[in-house]
Order: sequence, then structure tokens, then C-alpha cells
Amino acid sequence: MSQTKKFGVVLFPEFELLDVFGPVEMFANLTGMVDTVMVAENAGPVRSAQAVNVVADHGFADCPKLDYILVPGGMGTRTEIDNQAMLSFLRTRVAEAELAMTVCTGTALFAKAGVLDGHRATTNKMLFQWVADQGPKVEWVKQARWVEDGKFATSSGVSAGMDMALAVIERLYGKEMSKALEVGTEYDRHTDASWDPFAKIHGLV
Amino acid sequence: MSQTKKFGVVLFPEFELLDVFGPVEMFANLTGMVDTVMVAENAGPVRSAQAVNVVADHGFADCPKLDYILVPGGMGTRTEIDNQAMLSFLRTRVAEAELAMTVCTGTALFAKAGVLDGHRATTNKMLFQWVADQGPKVEWVKQARWVEDGKFATSSGVSAGMDMALAVIERLYGKEMSKALEVGTEYDRHTDASWDPFAKIHGLV
Repeated sequence: MSQTKKFGVVLFPEFELLDVFGPVEMFANLTGMVDTVMVAENAGPVRSAQAVNVVADHGFADCPKLDYILVPGGMGTRTEIDNQAMLSFLRTRVAEAELAMTVCTGTALFAKAGVLDGHRATTNKMLFQWVADQGPKVEWVKQARWVEDGKFATSSGVSAGMDMALAVIERLYGKEMSKALEVGTEYDRHTDASWDPFAKIHGLV
Repeated sequence: MSQTKKFGVVLFPEFELLDVFGPVEMFANLTGMVDTVMVAENAGPVRSAQAVNVVADHGFADCPKLDYILVPGGMGTRTEIDNQAMLSFLRTRVAEAELAMTVCTGTALFAKAGVLDGHRATTNKMLFQWVADQGPKVEWVKQARWVEDGKFATSSGVSAGMDMALAVIERLYGKEMSKALEVGTEYDRHTDASWDPFAKIHGLV
């Protein structure tokens, strides 16, 4: 894969910081292979659930075509599931993308947009039922660190996004590349997608 | 500890994203107990090593007193070790702080500023010798996920910052709090500060 891929991360008010920057740390360090951009309804600073402001490089209107797209979770998803501009953007951009990822309650936005209908997916385990209610036609997987189904990859809560990212990178760019990222970030990755003690903690299994 | 602590994270051009947002995810979710602010030489957007821009709430000149301070690593540390404004800011603010943390090559900045002289500390394992050269009077620990010494906590590369953060939070706020953060972020924490396979990978032990 020599072509540089445009990787768009969708921000919204009250997004969860690590949902974004876990996977971005991995993808953005695929130097020369991935060009990472932050996108929001409007360009400019977006306030996270942890109060830190991150700059959206593009608004929905001027966002370039995205090869990869990622949607984080966070408290803001409770509002965004009713934001038609967001849901419409996701429908269009997920259809065009070759890789579409969510972390944590970000899965609720894909589910509400309908793009996961008929696909297997997972999400945060504490808020599992609320997310599942947003997409009754999704095949919800209750116990999973992450789930890959076609071009979709959805992960469990917050830190699970890093394991999902490395699994996807290994599939697309090879084991040597994922290993280099693990060593470079000194990250002790989970490689078993079914590892998920949090499903039991929250009474899902 | 009922008093809200001001937690300042020091940004600079080409800082490493996960060095910041791993620990910030943990500390900033101590809701009502920690008030997190981003600080840089000048207020406004600061471009990370992964090209994402994060907003510094304060410049050095208008930065409030910091109870906790954290310095990330990243390619930018190679420039910042010669930035007298940075080194001077760190000397003053570390002296005032009750908790002073670094992640990855961020330790090089504390070392060069002289604030770690006589203290035990660790850093990224790939660039260990370069960092150690910045502080010949520091007691460098070659094999450690993180090191706590008095008010200082220094961590190994990138993802190690999350384990350091949770260890420090457990010490300051108790095990119930650190456990709540682990479960909330679905993070599989390392609790053994001496766990460090990366020291061996890079020939340090």
C-alpha cells in the first residue's frame, strides 16, 4: 500500500480524548502512508469531555474525501445522535471510505446513522444497552475488545481503541509495521479480540 | 484531598500526542478534583509530532500556579532542550509544584533544567542514552515502566504514561479511584513499576 491514505477523525463537543488519541497515535505514526486530519461540523477548536480543545482542520462542508474515518465516543454522543448534520455526514463519508472505525460510544453514532445495519459491532461495556438501542438492526457483540466486519472496525471502551488500531494496521500494513508501533510506543497490546473482562464486570455475560 | 488541583500540561511544537493524552485521560477524569490546563510558551494552537493541533490555554507568562505539572516527550524535545524560556519555566514551576511528571523523552527537559539532579528517574528506552546525557547528576533507572521519587514521577515511552498516571492517582486518591478509572477507560494497567521488556529490546539490560 504505497498510496497515502487520508484519515479523518470526527470531533464533536464533549468527545473523549483517549478515544481519539489512542488510535491516532498509531495511525498518524504510519509516516508517509497516512495523512491524519481532524474534522468537525465547523473547523476550529472543539472542546473535549476533558476540557482540552483540539483543532478541527476541516468543517463538514470543506472536508476532503476520507479513505479512513474514525469516530470517538464521549459524553457528547448523547447529543450527537440527534444531530442530523453529523448523521448525514457519517452516512456519506462511511459509504466512500474503505475503512470505518469507532471507539467506545462512538459506535452509537454509526448505529444511529444506520451504516452498521446487518454488521457485527461492539462498543463500551458500561453503556452497552444505550448504544445497542441506537441500532436494532446491528448484530451486537457483547463480549469483545474489538470487532472487525468488512470495512468496519468497532471497539470497546476508550483504551480498546489502541488494540483495535494495531489489529487493523497489522491487517492492512503487516506484522512488522504493527510491531514497530508497539515497540515505538512501548505498548503492551491485546491481540485477542475476544479478551474482554469488562463485559462480565458490567453483567453483559 | 478535597481541594481542586491545577494540573498543567506543557506543550511545545512536535510533542507526542499519546504522551499527553494518556495521562490527561486519567487525571482529567478526576472530576471536581483536578482542573486540567494546557500550557505552552505562547497560548494558542500547538502542532504535535502527529500534526494534530492542540490549544494551549495559557502562555508561560500568564500561566496560573500549577499544583501538578506534566511534560510529554516527542521529536520536539530535541529543540526544547536548548529553549531557555522552556527550561526557566520548568525550573520555576517544578519548584512550586507538589507533583511533577514526565512521559518518554519529556524527562530530557526536566534533566536539562536540572530539576532531577540527585533524583531517580527513567525515560523512553529507545532514546535512553540521549536523555541520560542531558542530566549526568540524575540517578537513571534503565529498567522501569515508571519511577516515583519524592514529588517526581517519570515514565518510560509513550504508553507508559498511563500506568504512571494510575499509580500516582492510586497513591494520592486511593485504590477505589484508580480502579474506577481503569474500569471506566477499560484499561489493562501494569501495576508493577519494574515491568519493562523494552529495556531488554533496546539492549539496556
